[in-house]
Amino acid sequence: MSNSIPPARTARLQTYSDASDPKTVKPRLDAVRREMNARGLSGYLVPRGDMFRGEYLPAHAERLRWLTSFTGSAGLAVIGRDKAALFVDGRYATQAPRQTDTSAFAVLPAVQGGYSDALRDIAGKVGPVGYDPWLFSPGDLEGLASILGTGRLKATDNLVDLIWTEDRPAPPEAPVELLGDNRAGKSRRQKLGELRNTIFEAGADALLITLPESVNWLMNMRGRDVPHTPFALSLALVPTEGRPTLFIDISKIGADAAALGADTDFAPIESLPDHLVRLGTNKKTVWTDAGSAPSILVSTLRDSGASLVEKRDPVLDLKSRKNDAEISGIRDAHRRDGVAMAKFLCWLDGVAGSAGLTEIDVVERLEAFRREDETLVDISFDTICGSGPNGAIMHYRVTETSNRTLVPGELLLVDSGAQYLSGTTDITRTVATGPVAPEHKDRNTRVLKGMIAISRLKFPLGTTGAQIDAFARHPLWEIGENFAHGTGHGVGAFLSVHEGPIGIAPRYHVPFAPGNVVSNEPGFYLEDGYGIRIENLVHVVAATEPRFLCFETLTLAPIDTRLIAMAMLTIEERDWLNAYHARVLSEIGPALDAETRGWLEKATAAV
Amino acid sequence: MSNSIPPARTARLQTYSDASDPKTVKPRLDAVRREMNARGLSGYLVPRGDMFRGEYLPAHAERLRWLTSFTGSAGLAVIGRDKAALFVDGRYATQAPRQTDTSAFAVLPAVQGGYSDALRDIAGKVGPVGYDPWLFSPGDLEGLASILGTGRLKATDNLVDLIWTEDRPAPPEAPVELLGDNRAGKSRRQKLGELRNTIFEAGADALLITLPESVNWLMNMRGRDVPHTPFALSLALVPTEGRPTLFIDISKIGADAAALGADTDFAPIESLPDHLVRLGTNKKTVWTDAGSAPSILVSTLRDSGASLVEKRDPVLDLKSRKNDAEISGIRDAHRRDGVAMAKFLCWLDGVAGSAGLTEIDVVERLEAFRREDETLVDISFDTICGSGPNGAIMHYRVTETSNRTLVPGELLLVDSGAQYLSGTTDITRTVATGPVAPEHKDRNTRVLKGMIAISRLKFPLGTTGAQIDAFARHPLWEIGENFAHGTGHGVGAFLSVHEGPIGIAPRYHVPFAPGNVVSNEPGFYLEDGYGIRIENLVHVVAATEPRFLCFETLTLAPIDTRLIAMAMLTIEERDWLNAYHARVLSEIGPALDAETRGWLEKATAAV
Repeated sequence: MSNSIPPARTARLQTYSDASDPKTVKPRLDAVRREMNARGLSGYLVPRGDMFRGEYLPAHAERLRWLTSFTGSAGLAVIGRDKAALFVDGRYATQAPRQTDTSAFAVLPAVQGGYSDALRDIAGKVGPVGYDPWLFSPGDLEGLASILGTGRLKATDNLVDLIWTEDRPAPPEAPVELLGDNRAGKSRRQKLGELRNTIFEAGADALLITLPESVNWLMNMRGRDVPHTPFALSLALVPTEGRPTLFIDISKIGADAAALGADTDFAPIESLPDHLVRLGTNKKTVWTDAGSAPSILVSTLRDSGASLVEKRDPVLDLKSRKNDAEISGIRDAHRRDGVAMAKFLCWLDGVAGSAGLTEIDVVERLEAFRREDETLVDISFDTICGSGPNGAIMHYRVTETSNRTLVPGELLLVDSGAQYLSGTTDITRTVATGPVAPEHKDRNTRVLKGMIAISRLKFPLGTTGAQIDAFARHPLWEIGENFAHGTGHGVGAFLSVHEGPIGIAPRYHVPFAPGNVVSNEPGFYLEDGYGIRIENLVHVVAATEPRFLCFETLTLAPIDTRLIAMAMLTIEERDWLNAYHARVLSEIGPALDAETRGWLEKATAAV
Repeated sequence: MSNSIPPARTARLQTYSDASDPKTVKPRLDAVRREMNARGLSGYLVPRGDMFRGEYLPAHAERLRWLTSFTGSAGLAVIGRDKAALFVDGRYATQAPRQTDTSAFAVLPAVQGGYSDALRDIAGKVGPVGYDPWLFSPGDLEGLASILGTGRLKATDNLVDLIWTEDRPAPPEAPVELLGDNRAGKSRRQKLGELRNTIFEAGADALLITLPESVNWLMNMRGRDVPHTPFALSLALVPTEGRPTLFIDISKIGADAAALGADTDFAPIESLPDHLVRLGTNKKTVWTDAGSAPSILVSTLRDSGASLVEKRDPVLDLKSRKNDAEISGIRDAHRRDGVAMAKFLCWLDGVAGSAGLTEIDVVERLEAFRREDETLVDISFDTICGSGPNGAIMHYRVTETSNRTLVPGELLLVDSGAQYLSGTTDITRTVATGPVAPEHKDRNTRVLKGMIAISRLKFPLGTTGAQIDAFARHPLWEIGENFAHGTGHGVGAFLSVHEGPIGIAPRYHVPFAPGNVVSNEPGFYLEDGYGIRIENLVHVVAATEPRFLCFETLTLAPIDTRLIAMAMLTIEERDWLNAYHARVLSEIGPALDAETRGWLEKATAAV
């Protein structure tokens, strides 16, 4: 980052509207159908993502939202000649029908990992189904073809872009910012040198990088193009010999980022296919990630004569192993966040019993405490603040419609995080707001035992997240209960709050390595009842035993001891909790005002 | 099986020779090279397996052994114009160089899951590399092509078969035997009906089954073609409409198996390609398992115009979920095996301190106790009996060369199993032979804790072996130790002692289902020191909690309590052990003579 630290934001970072405009849906759908018919298409696909496949989109790329009025973070619209459907996962089963016009789009469940056979029903059994090849990867298309039948998918213009011309927001223009080598821990040149070796060893002449988080990490740059993730939308081409090319809206490269030019060329994104054709014509071998690269780029390479090495983007692995400078920044971010959390939890304890406090009040106060830190850049995602039954909605985001007034005695689940200049945080605490029911205590203690099991685990080199996930579930399994999400996800270094390729869940098959930062967040949810989740971020370090690794905790905030059935903890678990709380007090205490410090002393007292 | 139960074998089932004849290697290799040159091949591949891909081969199919003199159960010979190598995995790093002529074949390590880049070095960098397309699956060829380069592999005659004409054993001719419906739990017709539905639902017109364990399970038949696995070598083609065809040496279908003819046609194996061509010509869709089908069959289908559904052989899943009749047979087998194990362990306790007792003595005595049961058909694999440092060799098989005399105080690891008419067993016990060293006690207790953790586990529907494997390792991980094999493998019902698709190890991604039988066998090995393994078979049953499963133990034999540090067990672990021992005594005790029963009472006394 340049030396001019931006001021802490004064405007609200989180909004609470879920307004939609179902009236707009039918005319827009009709317009898409006209374009379909003009092209002889029997169906057309509109995904939620853009070519960069990030969680957050710039406003001008919210095509699914524009078309269907649905504001969720995942979905696929399938438009047939007579029928149309919006496929959404379980999280959005209630929200999507409320937001769209269900007489235009039937809302159908997206089956895990893809879309159900119903897709064929909507798109019709014969005839070409159009899609924008910038918005689907070869991997996506393979999944779709297995449902629709091979040979039916047809790359076309983006039909939404043809129609959505009026009132369309402009693309983001935030300037690129640079990270100093001391912040990044490694210079751009060093990273490029190491990456070139990796590309060479894989037998490739060049690597095509299509994920902005990879490009931004590699180039030691950041940006402000989308909410909550501080990267600049861009792609890159890195040859084993010669200079890399950064594909980006060149107007974003201002004086602050001019130093980039020493290590890379710049070119507009639209010119990337031409660069790929040149590689193909020269019979080069290009490494691409078929799971995330836009299919148009992969087919351009193939059609122009390039050989392909199809493997996971290697930058994902490199960037998941944080170096010492990055870990030191992340520690700094967690201390800052710990201060905000202590203030927040102290405040909450004082007001939880008062009448009329709403979920939005809680979220706003937490955000305000975070904004007191001058290095705050953004929240890392919309805070999940679920009181009572809302706590059981796993990806709940409070809106003006859903906002609830807290009832003392209910559990309150708060999952939040922030982007500081030094790093990214993500923390969940579940707190008591009055007398605690024995069932709440039992379930919360089981969740805590699972969380401590991961925190205390030592495991040999080569161990994956798939192998250790169940330790977080075991205390719930013992009573025939479970939680329906992964135990943890990777977290970036002042980048995306969700990143691969490591994590703690049955789907993670990449071994842990020192420097990995991962969340540890078991939970328990009783539908229409309450929700519990306890989340710390941890990082992977070498254990004292040779060839073994373990986790070290990054997050610094007290865990509500009023919700713990102490008799259910083993001595080792109790020792862990006391040591953790002692550390929280010693690292956060000195930065607090007297009142908050007094509260924290009580909250972290040994049990 | 017919009603005439075969007599218990009187001949020894296990042999102890590892004799090889390195002198034969060079002339045979030269002869292969002459055939290679005649065909313009720059390399030739000889795998250990035959077209049926089983663990055990009939003598006439032991091509790798004939060529290299190496007797191990896995390996690949790669013959280049100037160099030749025998690739073997870690188990055979010592044995292979002793058995082959290393001036002809360099012995090289097979890297996990395949063969290293060294393969390209041996086979040369250009020119065609020949292979017998009956002996490699499309999956094998894909792995080989990724090393050798695409387009270099060339299907040819089997060059070994051209040379190995003199003194070649005849193919097995054991008659097919039938299982009654009461033993199989389901008639052949029922199984075929259910399988046809599965084939239809996958969009296929027919299923090609190439694994004899699948064919034998489906047809409720068994055979004696190979050691230790009681199946008849055969393949099958099952159409959704019309009769299936069993491809087998028809002379094996005697009077006892004539009933098969009511449900299936018979045809010689050589005619299978013609049958596939007919399916292709009629534009049929055929389900094949590219991981195990001989590549010649898959290419025949493809070349003749068939469409392919490439998925795992569905019979593997069906047969892994044992029905009540099968479980009841398996329980019977474990009671019989428990009686033999009690007699054996009682005998061992009496003689372990005597001078001169060798590993072979122990193996022979165990086999003799098993042979006392009139329903014994075979051992299910060669007994692993490792005393002291030999216990640390994970797949140790005692031979006249390796045979050791027991030294009192050493640990003795005995891993063995049997094929009874009612089912297949596999059990490991580690026993004290004198005063117990504290380290032995600590490690053995950790292994036992891991074994009990799996035994006591309750887990939700959908859980895979990959997810639970680490519970067996956790007590060792706590001190920075581990064991280098999976925790468990599936076991057949009077079929192969190792079967898929479920198991307990990071590589098993198929969810458990009621009826699965799996081994639970954590261990600990100190190289040149000692080995510990404790193994029970368990089967999956519904837990009392809805949508949860758990394991029920099948194996019935005492666990050596002299090797347990009782203070390291939790109350729950001790309760499990006492309940298990009480069950062993009550189920096995009544069948024992007074002396053995007295011994068993002491061995299973509550701790």
